[in-house]
Amino acid sequence: MQIDILSLFPEMFAGPLHTSMIGNAVENGKINVDVTNFRDFTTDKHNHVDDYPYGGGAGMLLQPQPIFDALAAVQAKHPQPGRVILLDPAGVQFDQHVAEDFAKEDHLTFICGHYEGYDERIRSLVTDEVSLGDYVLTGGELGAMVMIDATVRLIPGVLGNAESAPGDSFSSGLLEYPQYTRPADFRGMKVPDVLLSGDHGKVDDWRLEQALKRTYERRPDLLKELALSGKARQMLADIKADQQGYPE
Amino acid sequence: MQIDILSLFPEMFAGPLHTSMIGNAVENGKINVDVTNFRDFTTDKHNHVDDYPYGGGAGMLLQPQPIFDALAAVQAKHPQPGRVILLDPAGVQFDQHVAEDFAKEDHLTFICGHYEGYDERIRSLVTDEVSLGDYVLTGGELGAMVMIDATVRLIPGVLGNAESAPGDSFSSGLLEYPQYTRPADFRGMKVPDVLLSGDHGKVDDWRLEQALKRTYERRPDLLKELALSGKARQMLADIKADQQGYPE
Repeated sequence: MQIDILSLFPEMFAGPLHTSMIGNAVENGKINVDVTNFRDFTTDKHNHVDDYPYGGGAGMLLQPQPIFDALAAVQAKHPQPGRVILLDPAGVQFDQHVAEDFAKEDHLTFICGHYEGYDERIRSLVTDEVSLGDYVLTGGELGAMVMIDATVRLIPGVLGNAESAPGDSFSSGLLEYPQYTRPADFRGMKVPDVLLSGDHGKVDDWRLEQALKRTYERRPDLLKELALSGKARQMLADIKADQQGYPE
Repeated sequence: MQIDILSLFPEMFAGPLHTSMIGNAVENGKINVDVTNFRDFTTDKHNHVDDYPYGGGAGMLLQPQPIFDALAAVQAKHPQPGRVILLDPAGVQFDQHVAEDFAKEDHLTFICGHYEGYDERIRSLVTDEVSLGDYVLTGGELGAMVMIDATVRLIPGVLGNAESAPGDSFSSGLLEYPQYTRPADFRGMKVPDVLLSGDHGKVDDWRLEQALKRTYERRPDLLKELALSGKARQMLADIKADQQGYPE
Protein backbone atom coordinates (compact mmCIF):
# COMPACT_ATOMS: atom_id res chain seq x y z
CA MET A 1 0.00 0.00 0.00
CA GLN A 2 1.19 3.50 -0.86
CA ILE A 3 0.47 6.05 1.85
CA ASP A 4 0.96 9.76 1.25
CA ILE A 5 0.73 12.38 3.93
CA LEU A 6 0.45 16.11 3.22
CA SER A 7 1.58 18.03 6.28
CA LEU A 8 3.41 21.16 7.40
CA PHE A 9 5.15 19.11 10.11
CA PRO A 10 6.84 16.09 8.49
CA GLU A 11 9.13 15.75 11.52
CA MET A 12 6.17 14.65 13.63
CA PHE A 13 5.98 11.40 11.67
CA ALA A 14 9.60 10.29 11.95
CA GLY A 15 9.25 8.42 15.25
CA PRO A 16 5.92 6.71 14.70
CA LEU A 17 6.72 5.68 11.12
CA HIS A 18 9.93 3.94 12.13
CA THR A 19 8.76 2.20 15.29
CA SER A 20 7.00 -1.00 16.16
CA MET A 21 4.32 -2.38 13.83
CA ILE A 22 4.33 0.48 11.30
CA GLY A 23 8.14 0.51 11.22
CA ASN A 24 8.12 -3.24 10.51
CA ALA A 25 5.48 -2.88 7.79
CA VAL A 26 7.67 -0.26 6.08
CA GLU A 27 10.78 -2.45 6.41
CA ASN A 28 8.97 -5.50 5.06
CA GLY A 29 7.68 -3.57 2.05
CA LYS A 30 4.02 -3.96 3.05
CA ILE A 31 3.60 -0.20 2.93
CA ASN A 32 5.52 2.76 1.58
CA VAL A 33 4.95 6.11 3.27
CA ASP A 34 5.87 9.49 1.77
CA VAL A 35 5.37 12.70 3.72
CA THR A 36 5.07 15.83 1.58
CA ASN A 37 5.41 19.27 3.11
CA PHE A 38 2.90 21.33 1.17
CA ARG A 39 4.73 24.49 2.16
CA ASP A 40 7.22 23.43 -0.55
CA PHE A 41 4.45 24.02 -3.10
CA THR A 42 3.36 27.52 -2.14
CA THR A 43 3.68 30.20 -4.81
CA ASP A 44 3.72 32.86 -2.08
CA LYS A 45 7.01 34.71 -2.11
CA HIS A 46 7.21 34.67 1.71
CA ASN A 47 6.43 30.94 1.78
CA HIS A 48 3.14 31.54 3.57
CA VAL A 49 0.48 28.86 3.35
CA ASP A 50 -2.21 30.54 5.48
CA ASP A 51 -4.11 33.79 5.58
CA TYR A 52 -6.92 35.55 7.47
CA PRO A 53 -10.50 34.33 7.10
CA TYR A 54 -12.87 36.29 4.89
CA GLY A 55 -15.62 37.78 6.99
CA GLY A 56 -13.35 38.16 10.01
CA GLY A 57 -12.63 35.95 12.97
CA ALA A 58 -9.71 34.59 14.95
CA GLY A 59 -7.00 32.31 13.66
CA MET A 60 -5.52 31.63 10.27
CA LEU A 61 -6.78 29.34 7.51
CA LEU A 62 -4.79 27.16 5.15
CA GLN A 63 -5.03 28.48 1.61
CA PRO A 64 -6.10 26.21 -1.24
CA GLN A 65 -3.18 26.67 -3.65
CA PRO A 66 -0.36 24.83 -1.80
CA ILE A 67 -2.56 21.82 -0.99
CA PHE A 68 -4.07 21.63 -4.50
CA ASP A 69 -0.61 21.66 -6.05
CA ALA A 70 0.97 19.25 -3.53
CA LEU A 71 -1.83 16.76 -4.10
CA ALA A 72 -1.47 17.09 -7.89
CA ALA A 73 2.24 16.26 -7.53
CA VAL A 74 1.45 13.18 -5.40
CA GLN A 75 -1.19 11.99 -7.85
CA ALA A 76 1.14 12.48 -10.82
CA LYS A 77 3.49 9.95 -9.18
CA HIS A 78 0.75 7.44 -8.35
CA PRO A 79 -1.75 7.03 -11.18
CA GLN A 80 -4.27 5.28 -8.89
CA PRO A 81 -5.58 8.15 -6.81
CA GLY A 82 -7.19 5.86 -4.22
CA ARG A 83 -8.77 7.57 -1.23
CA VAL A 84 -7.94 11.16 -0.35
CA ILE A 85 -8.75 11.68 3.31
CA LEU A 86 -9.24 14.98 5.06
CA LEU A 87 -8.85 14.90 8.84
CA ASP A 88 -11.68 17.06 10.10
CA PRO A 89 -13.89 17.17 13.20
CA ALA A 90 -16.92 17.53 10.90
CA GLY A 91 -16.14 14.25 9.12
CA VAL A 92 -17.57 10.80 9.70
CA GLN A 93 -16.33 9.17 12.89
CA PHE A 94 -13.35 6.91 12.34
CA ASP A 95 -14.00 3.39 13.60
CA GLN A 96 -12.96 -0.19 12.96
CA HIS A 97 -15.23 -0.43 9.89
CA VAL A 98 -13.56 2.60 8.29
CA ALA A 99 -10.15 1.07 9.05
CA GLU A 100 -11.25 -2.17 7.36
CA ASP A 101 -12.35 -0.20 4.27
CA PHE A 102 -9.08 1.72 4.14
CA ALA A 103 -7.08 -1.52 4.47
CA LYS A 104 -8.49 -2.73 1.12
CA GLU A 105 -7.10 0.25 -0.81
CA ASP A 106 -3.84 0.49 -2.77
CA HIS A 107 -3.29 4.18 -2.10
CA LEU A 108 -4.31 6.43 0.78
CA THR A 109 -3.51 10.13 0.95
CA PHE A 110 -4.04 12.01 4.21
CA ILE A 111 -4.35 15.80 4.17
CA CYS A 112 -3.44 17.18 7.58
CA GLY A 113 -4.80 20.61 8.36
CA HIS A 114 -3.27 22.70 11.08
CA TYR A 115 -4.01 25.95 12.89
CA GLU A 116 -7.59 27.20 12.99
CA GLY A 117 -8.81 25.38 9.89
CA TYR A 118 -8.65 25.34 6.11
CA ASP A 119 -10.28 26.99 3.18
CA GLU A 120 -13.55 25.25 2.33
CA ARG A 121 -12.49 24.68 -1.29
CA ILE A 122 -9.94 22.12 -0.12
CA ARG A 123 -12.87 19.78 0.60
CA SER A 124 -13.48 19.52 -3.16
CA LEU A 125 -10.25 17.49 -3.44
CA VAL A 126 -11.13 14.68 -1.10
CA THR A 127 -13.04 11.40 -1.20
CA ASP A 128 -13.41 11.11 2.59
CA GLU A 129 -13.74 13.53 5.48
CA VAL A 130 -12.99 11.63 8.66
CA SER A 131 -12.92 12.63 12.32
CA LEU A 132 -10.97 10.84 15.00
CA GLY A 133 -13.55 11.61 17.65
CA ASP A 134 -15.44 14.45 19.31
CA TYR A 135 -12.47 16.48 20.41
CA VAL A 136 -10.37 19.28 18.97
CA LEU A 137 -6.74 18.74 18.01
CA THR A 138 -4.09 21.23 16.91
CA GLY A 139 -3.63 19.50 13.58
CA GLY A 140 -4.46 16.42 11.55
CA GLU A 141 -1.05 14.82 12.00
CA LEU A 142 -1.81 12.73 15.09
CA GLY A 143 -5.14 11.71 13.61
CA ALA A 144 -3.45 10.54 10.42
CA MET A 145 -0.99 8.46 12.46
CA VAL A 146 -3.82 6.85 14.40
CA MET A 147 -5.75 6.01 11.24
CA ILE A 148 -2.61 4.64 9.57
CA ASP A 149 -1.88 2.44 12.60
CA ALA A 150 -5.45 1.09 12.79
CA THR A 151 -5.46 0.46 9.02
CA VAL A 152 -2.00 -0.97 8.40
CA ARG A 153 -2.30 -3.62 11.10
CA LEU A 154 -5.24 -5.07 9.13
CA ILE A 155 -3.19 -5.57 5.96
CA PRO A 156 -2.58 -9.32 5.59
CA GLY A 157 0.90 -10.33 6.75
CA VAL A 158 1.62 -7.18 8.74
CA LEU A 159 0.99 -8.57 12.21
CA GLY A 160 3.56 -11.17 13.20
CA ASN A 161 1.00 -13.48 14.68
CA ALA A 162 -1.85 -14.04 12.23
CA GLU A 163 -4.26 -14.62 15.12
CA SER A 164 -3.61 -11.35 16.89
CA ALA A 165 -5.90 -9.03 14.96
CA PRO A 166 -9.23 -10.90 15.09
CA GLY A 167 -9.12 -11.46 18.87
CA ASP A 168 -8.90 -7.76 19.63
CA SER A 169 -11.66 -5.60 21.02
CA PHE A 170 -14.23 -4.55 18.41
CA SER A 171 -13.25 -7.26 15.92
CA SER A 172 -15.45 -9.70 17.86
CA GLY A 173 -17.89 -6.92 18.63
CA LEU A 174 -17.28 -7.35 22.38
CA LEU A 175 -14.81 -5.64 24.65
CA GLU A 176 -11.93 -7.88 25.56
CA TYR A 177 -12.12 -10.23 28.55
CA PRO A 178 -9.58 -9.76 31.40
CA GLN A 179 -6.21 -11.28 30.66
CA TYR A 180 -3.45 -12.40 33.00
CA THR A 181 0.16 -13.43 32.65
CA ARG A 182 2.86 -14.46 35.12
CA PRO A 183 3.25 -14.39 38.05
CA ALA A 184 0.13 -16.22 39.26
CA ASP A 185 0.37 -14.25 42.50
CA PHE A 186 1.66 -10.71 42.14
CA ARG A 187 1.94 -8.93 45.48
CA GLY A 188 -1.16 -10.72 46.73
CA MET A 189 -3.22 -10.22 43.56
CA LYS A 190 -4.02 -13.64 42.18
CA VAL A 191 -4.92 -14.93 38.73
CA PRO A 192 -8.43 -16.47 38.68
CA ASP A 193 -8.27 -20.22 39.31
CA VAL A 194 -10.13 -21.13 36.12
CA LEU A 195 -7.25 -19.78 33.99
CA LEU A 196 -4.83 -22.11 35.77
CA SER A 197 -7.16 -25.13 35.53
CA GLY A 198 -6.04 -26.37 32.13
CA ASP A 199 -9.71 -26.96 31.22
CA HIS A 200 -10.03 -25.21 27.85
CA GLY A 201 -13.81 -25.45 27.75
CA LYS A 202 -14.12 -23.73 31.12
CA VAL A 203 -11.56 -21.10 30.12
CA ASP A 204 -13.50 -20.30 26.93
CA ASP A 205 -16.78 -20.03 28.85
CA TRP A 206 -15.22 -17.79 31.48
CA ARG A 207 -13.74 -15.52 28.84
CA LEU A 208 -17.00 -15.23 26.93
CA GLU A 209 -18.87 -14.46 30.13
CA GLN A 210 -16.31 -11.85 31.20
CA ALA A 211 -16.34 -10.20 27.76
CA LEU A 212 -20.14 -10.04 27.85
CA LYS A 213 -20.10 -8.68 31.39
CA ARG A 214 -17.58 -5.97 30.62
CA THR A 215 -19.37 -4.98 27.43
CA TYR A 216 -22.75 -4.90 29.19
CA GLU A 217 -21.37 -2.75 32.00
CA ARG A 218 -19.31 -0.35 29.92
CA ARG A 219 -20.64 -0.31 26.39
CA PRO A 220 -24.13 -1.79 26.20
CA ASP A 221 -24.55 -0.01 22.84
CA LEU A 222 -22.13 -2.52 21.29
CA LEU A 223 -24.39 -5.46 22.21
CA LYS A 224 -27.23 -4.22 20.03
CA GLU A 225 -25.29 -4.81 16.82
CA LEU A 226 -24.34 -8.40 17.62
CA ALA A 227 -25.82 -11.73 16.66
CA LEU A 228 -25.00 -13.67 19.85
CA SER A 229 -24.94 -17.44 20.12
CA GLY A 230 -27.54 -19.17 22.29
CA LYS A 231 -24.96 -19.75 25.01
CA ALA A 232 -23.93 -16.08 24.96
CA ARG A 233 -27.55 -14.94 25.12
CA GLN A 234 -28.15 -17.09 28.20
CA MET A 235 -24.98 -15.79 29.86
CA LEU A 236 -26.02 -12.22 29.15
CA ALA A 237 -29.47 -12.82 30.63
CA ASP A 238 -27.84 -14.22 33.78
CA ILE A 239 -25.47 -11.23 33.99
CA LYS A 240 -28.38 -8.80 33.71
CA ALA A 241 -30.36 -10.70 36.33
CA ASP A 242 -27.39 -10.74 38.70
CA GLN A 243 -26.78 -7.03 38.40
CA GLN A 244 -30.40 -6.03 38.71
CA GLY A 245 -30.94 -8.39 41.63
CA TYR A 246 -33.90 -10.15 40.01
CA PRO A 247 -34.43 -12.24 36.89
CA GLU A 248 -35.57 -10.50 33.69
CA MET B 1 1.33 20.69 34.27
CA GLN B 2 3.52 17.63 34.75
CA ILE B 3 2.88 14.90 32.18
CA ASP B 4 4.41 11.46 32.56
CA ILE B 5 4.24 8.78 29.92
CA LEU B 6 5.08 5.14 30.56
CA SER B 7 5.93 3.47 27.26
CA LEU B 8 8.18 0.88 25.67
CA PHE B 9 8.70 3.22 22.70
CA PRO B 10 9.89 6.62 23.98
CA GLU B 11 11.27 7.44 20.52
CA MET B 12 7.72 7.70 19.16
CA PHE B 13 7.18 10.84 21.22
CA ALA B 14 10.25 12.81 20.15
CA GLY B 15 8.69 14.44 17.07
CA PRO B 16 5.24 15.27 18.42
CA LEU B 17 6.57 16.57 21.76
CA HIS B 18 8.91 19.03 20.08
CA THR B 19 6.65 20.32 17.34
CA SER B 20 4.00 22.96 16.97
CA MET B 21 1.65 23.70 19.90
CA ILE B 22 2.97 21.01 22.28
CA GLY B 23 6.57 21.95 21.50
CA ASN B 24 5.77 25.57 22.31
CA ALA B 25 4.00 24.63 25.54
CA VAL B 26 7.11 22.71 26.62
CA GLU B 27 9.41 25.60 25.67
CA ASN B 28 7.25 28.13 27.49
CA GLY B 29 7.20 26.04 30.64
CA LYS B 30 3.43 25.46 30.51
CA ILE B 31 4.02 21.71 30.61
CA ASN B 32 6.86 19.37 31.41
CA VAL B 33 6.79 15.94 29.79
CA ASP B 34 8.85 12.94 30.93
CA VAL B 35 8.74 9.66 29.06
CA THR B 36 9.73 6.61 31.12
CA ASN B 37 10.56 3.32 29.45
CA PHE B 38 9.16 0.76 31.84
CA ARG B 39 11.47 -1.86 30.38
CA ASP B 40 14.14 -0.13 32.48
CA PHE B 41 12.26 -1.34 35.57
CA THR B 42 11.91 -5.01 34.77
CA THR B 43 13.47 -7.45 37.19
CA ASP B 44 13.55 -10.10 34.45
CA LYS B 45 17.13 -11.08 33.70
CA HIS B 46 16.45 -11.10 29.94
CA ASN B 47 14.79 -7.66 30.16
CA HIS B 48 11.43 -9.12 29.15
CA VAL B 49 8.30 -7.18 30.04
CA ASP B 50 5.72 -9.53 28.53
CA ASP B 51 4.71 -13.17 28.76
CA TYR B 52 2.09 -15.64 27.51
CA PRO B 53 -1.52 -15.36 28.71
CA TYR B 54 -2.74 -17.80 31.35
CA GLY B 55 -5.43 -20.00 29.84
CA GLY B 56 -3.88 -19.86 26.39
CA GLY B 57 -4.42 -17.62 23.41
CA ALA B 58 -2.47 -15.62 20.88
CA GLY B 59 -0.21 -12.69 21.59
CA MET B 60 1.79 -11.58 24.58
CA LEU B 61 0.65 -9.60 27.60
CA LEU B 62 2.49 -6.91 29.52
CA GLN B 63 3.42 -8.17 32.99
CA PRO B 64 2.48 -6.16 36.08
CA GLN B 65 5.89 -5.80 37.74
CA PRO B 66 7.65 -3.36 35.37
CA ILE B 67 4.65 -1.03 35.17
CA PHE B 68 3.97 -1.12 38.93
CA ASP B 69 7.58 -0.22 39.65
CA ALA B 70 7.90 2.42 36.93
CA LEU B 71 4.75 4.16 38.19
CA ALA B 72 6.04 4.02 41.77
CA ALA B 73 9.24 5.76 40.61
CA VAL B 74 7.23 8.48 38.83
CA GLN B 75 5.01 9.03 41.85
CA ALA B 76 8.00 9.23 44.19
CA LYS B 77 9.20 12.22 42.13
CA HIS B 78 5.81 13.93 42.03
CA PRO B 79 3.99 13.80 45.36
CA GLN B 80 0.64 14.77 43.77
CA PRO B 81 -0.32 11.61 41.95
CA GLY B 82 -3.01 13.35 39.86
CA ARG B 83 -4.73 11.21 37.25
CA VAL B 84 -3.26 7.91 36.10
CA ILE B 85 -4.71 7.09 32.70
CA LEU B 86 -4.74 3.73 31.01
CA LEU B 87 -5.24 3.82 27.24
CA ASP B 88 -7.65 0.96 26.57
CA PRO B 89 -10.42 0.22 24.06
CA ALA B 90 -12.65 -0.82 26.96
CA GLY B 91 -12.34 2.59 28.63
CA VAL B 92 -14.69 5.55 28.48
CA GLN B 93 -14.65 7.36 25.16
CA PHE B 94 -12.29 10.30 25.08
CA ASP B 95 -14.06 13.50 24.11
CA GLN B 96 -13.85 17.25 24.61
CA HIS B 97 -15.36 16.99 28.10
CA VAL B 98 -12.66 14.53 29.19
CA ALA B 99 -10.01 16.85 27.73
CA GLU B 100 -11.48 19.76 29.73
CA ASP B 101 -11.30 17.65 32.91
CA PHE B 102 -7.71 16.62 32.24
CA ALA B 103 -6.72 20.26 31.58
CA LYS B 104 -7.59 21.17 35.19
CA GLU B 105 -5.10 18.68 36.68
CA ASP B 106 -1.53 19.35 37.83
CA HIS B 107 -0.24 15.89 36.96
CA LEU B 108 -1.27 13.39 34.31
CA THR B 109 0.37 9.99 33.85
CA PHE B 110 -0.40 7.94 30.74
CA ILE B 111 0.27 4.20 30.74
CA CYS B 112 0.69 3.01 27.16
CA GLY B 113 0.10 -0.68 26.60
CA HIS B 114 1.44 -2.40 23.55
CA TYR B 115 1.16 -5.77 21.83
CA GLU B 116 -1.92 -7.88 22.55
CA GLY B 117 -2.79 -6.32 25.88
CA TYR B 118 -1.81 -6.16 29.52
CA ASP B 119 -2.27 -8.07 32.69
CA GLU B 120 -5.57 -7.21 34.32
CA ARG B 121 -3.90 -6.31 37.62
CA ILE B 122 -2.43 -3.20 35.98
CA ARG B 123 -5.93 -1.70 36.02
CA SER B 124 -5.71 -1.50 39.81
CA LEU B 125 -3.12 1.29 39.42
CA VAL B 126 -5.19 3.73 37.42
CA THR B 127 -7.79 6.42 38.06
CA ASP B 128 -9.08 6.50 34.46
CA GLU B 129 -9.42 3.99 31.66
CA VAL B 130 -9.92 5.93 28.45
CA SER B 131 -10.45 4.87 24.85
CA LEU B 132 -9.66 7.02 21.84
CA GLY B 133 -12.50 5.54 19.82
CA ASP B 134 -13.94 2.28 18.54
CA TYR B 135 -10.88 1.03 16.76
CA VAL B 136 -7.87 -1.11 17.58
CA LEU B 137 -4.38 0.36 17.72
CA THR B 138 -1.02 -1.35 18.12
CA GLY B 139 -0.28 0.54 21.29
CA GLY B 140 -1.37 3.35 23.54
CA GLU B 141 1.34 5.76 22.39
CA LEU B 142 -0.60 7.50 19.62
CA GLY B 143 -3.65 7.69 21.83
CA ALA B 144 -1.64 9.34 24.59
CA MET B 145 -0.31 11.92 22.12
CA VAL B 146 -3.82 12.69 20.91
CA MET B 147 -5.12 13.11 24.46
CA ILE B 148 -2.14 15.27 25.41
CA ASP B 149 -2.69 17.50 22.37
CA ALA B 150 -6.42 17.91 23.03
CA THR B 151 -5.73 18.61 26.71
CA VAL B 152 -2.70 20.88 26.58
CA ARG B 153 -4.27 23.32 24.10
CA LEU B 154 -6.95 24.01 26.72
CA ILE B 155 -4.43 25.12 29.37
CA PRO B 156 -4.71 28.92 29.69
CA GLY B 157 -1.96 30.74 27.80
CA VAL B 158 -0.93 27.81 25.62
CA LEU B 159 -2.64 28.88 22.40
CA GLY B 160 -1.09 32.02 20.95
CA ASN B 161 -4.44 33.54 20.11
CA ALA B 162 -6.68 33.45 23.16
CA GLU B 163 -9.73 33.34 20.93
CA SER B 164 -8.74 30.29 18.95
CA ALA B 165 -9.88 27.54 21.27
CA PRO B 166 -13.50 28.52 21.97
CA GLY B 167 -14.39 28.98 18.27
CA ASP B 168 -13.48 25.41 17.39
CA SER B 169 -15.82 22.60 16.60
CA PHE B 170 -17.39 21.01 19.71
CA SER B 171 -16.59 23.97 21.97
CA SER B 172 -19.74 25.69 20.68
CA GLY B 173 -21.49 22.36 20.39
CA LEU B 174 -21.89 22.82 16.63
CA LEU B 175 -19.64 21.71 13.79
CA GLU B 176 -17.70 24.58 12.31
CA TYR B 177 -19.15 26.70 9.50
CA PRO B 178 -17.30 26.79 6.14
CA GLN B 179 -14.34 29.14 6.15
CA TYR B 180 -12.54 30.84 3.27
CA THR B 181 -9.33 32.77 2.82
CA ARG B 182 -7.59 34.37 -0.15
CA PRO B 183 -7.89 34.31 -3.09
CA ALA B 184 -11.56 35.26 -3.51
CA ASP B 185 -11.58 33.32 -6.78
CA PHE B 186 -9.39 30.21 -6.82
CA ARG B 187 -9.43 28.46 -10.19
CA GLY B 188 -13.08 29.38 -10.67
CA MET B 189 -14.16 28.48 -7.12
CA LYS B 190 -15.48 31.63 -5.49
CA VAL B 191 -15.86 32.75 -1.91
CA PRO B 192 -19.56 33.35 -1.01
CA ASP B 193 -20.50 37.01 -1.56
CA VAL B 194 -21.74 37.49 1.98
CA LEU B 195 -18.21 36.98 3.39
CA LEU B 196 -16.93 39.82 1.16
CA SER B 197 -19.84 42.14 2.02
CA GLY B 198 -18.32 43.73 5.12
CA ASP B 199 -21.73 43.40 6.84
CA HIS B 200 -20.81 41.73 10.13
CA GLY B 201 -24.41 41.01 11.10
CA LYS B 202 -25.03 39.17 7.84
CA VAL B 203 -21.72 37.30 8.16
CA ASP B 204 -22.64 36.15 11.68
CA ASP B 205 -26.08 35.01 10.56
CA TRP B 206 -24.66 33.13 7.57
CA ARG B 207 -22.08 31.40 9.75
CA LEU B 208 -24.64 30.37 12.34
CA GLU B 209 -26.94 29.05 9.62
CA GLN B 210 -24.12 27.11 7.94
CA ALA B 211 -22.94 25.64 11.23
CA LEU B 212 -26.50 24.54 12.03
CA LYS B 213 -26.93 23.10 8.51
CA ARG B 214 -23.69 21.14 8.63
CA THR B 215 -24.41 19.84 12.11
CA TYR B 216 -27.98 18.87 11.15
CA GLU B 217 -26.77 17.03 8.04
CA ARG B 218 -23.76 15.29 9.55
CA ARG B 219 -24.17 15.06 13.30
CA PRO B 220 -27.81 15.60 14.29
CA ASP B 221 -26.97 13.87 17.60
CA LEU B 222 -24.98 16.96 18.65
CA LEU B 223 -28.05 19.20 18.34
CA LYS B 224 -29.91 17.34 21.06
CA GLU B 225 -27.51 18.51 23.77
CA LEU B 226 -27.70 22.21 22.89
CA ALA B 227 -29.70 25.09 24.26
CA LEU B 228 -30.16 27.06 21.01
CA SER B 229 -31.12 30.73 20.85
CA GLY B 230 -34.51 31.69 19.39
CA LYS B 231 -32.84 32.79 16.15
CA ALA B 232 -30.94 29.51 15.87
CA ARG B 233 -34.08 27.48 16.52
CA GLN B 234 -35.91 29.33 13.71
CA MET B 235 -32.97 28.82 11.33
CA LEU B 236 -32.88 25.13 12.16
CA ALA B 237 -36.61 24.79 11.53
CA ASP B 238 -36.14 26.45 8.11
CA ILE B 239 -33.20 24.15 7.30
CA LYS B 240 -35.26 21.07 8.17
CA ALA B 241 -38.22 22.33 6.12
CA ASP B 242 -35.95 23.05 3.13
CA GLN B 243 -34.39 19.63 3.17
CA GLN B 244 -37.61 17.74 3.65
CA GLY B 245 -39.38 19.80 0.99
CA TYR B 246 -42.22 20.78 3.33
CA PRO B 247 -42.54 22.76 6.54
CA GLU B 248 -42.45 20.89 9.83
